[in-house]
Amino acid sequence: MNEFMKIALDEARLGINADHGGPFGAVVVRNDQLISKAHNEVLKLNDPTAHAEILAIRRASSTLNTFDLSDCEIYCTSEPCPMCFSAIYWARIKKLYYGTSRNDVSAIGFDDAHIYEIIRGQRTETDQMETLSIDRDGCLEILQEWHAKPSRKLY
Amino acid sequence: MNEFMKIALDEARLGINADHGGPFGAVVVRNDQLISKAHNEVLKLNDPTAHAEILAIRRASSTLNTFDLSDCEIYCTSEPCPMCFSAIYWARIKKLYYGTSRNDVSAIGFDDAHIYEIIRGQRTETDQMETLSIDRDGCLEILQEWHAKPSRKLY
Repeated sequence: MNEFMKIALDEARLGINADHGGPFGAVVVRNDQLISKAHNEVLKLNDPTAHAEILAIRRASSTLNTFDLSDCEIYCTSEPCPMCFSAIYWARIKKLYYGTSRNDVSAIGFDDAHIYEIIRGQRTETDQMETLSIDRDGCLEILQEWHAKPSRKLY
Repeated sequence: MNEFMKIALDEARLGINADHGGPFGAVVVRNDQLISKAHNEVLKLNDPTAHAEILAIRRASSTLNTFDLSDCEIYCTSEPCPMCFSAIYWARIKKLYYGTSRNDVSAIGFDDAHIYEIIRGQRTETDQMETLSIDRDGCLEILQEWHAKPSRKLY
């Protein structure tokens, strides 16, 4: 097994032994050096966003003092859910290694594949969540205000 | 304008005036009462996951002491990116109101629509991020280990 995936897997085991959340671990690596590691802490922290990948990214960004992790790679014991996949993309991470698939994770009861299907338009989302667009005009102003600002910074 | 969307918009303005990040705000509401509010803090916190919706969810979960926000609604000044959309789904929030669309946000330079297209399979992701599956068998064990645990808890 890849040495970094092994660390991610050890994190996952640590998390389930401590009842911190789901059986998932992730590590961020730069130049073959471990930068951060994390396991799912949704239950421990009462935070639905505390997936292993999100925590590993937040810790790596904190350690490296930048939101731009474009010189990093991430190892995840399972295929990231769409939240984490997008977070990895926002962090500009160049390479994602994952172990088990969204379907493997689905098979033990998690919603990863379900949310992928909603985003892909293969499912209606009305089974759990209703989505409505309101007040677009009012909200458009703030985008234009930001865009007109000379000091604006993209991330 | 809806009163809660107005609060989210005020948050967005506060964030851009302070150079905390992008022009986005979000609030979580329960029984017509404001539970949490947030604006994008990616630049302030050096955290690529610090979108307004993620912070609003984390604050609401912290305040209500639960990862389950199924009795809550969320108001977002822009359509959530896939990271935030999925976070809202994981939080079990029942209703999502948003102002501007992913295309409005794309027009001022953000990657939201781009990431949606990748997840929807409408774009190859090799322009920024490579994805590889490795060590599935080793990682599968931990899923089975968790699934066999009587005290396991889904979220």
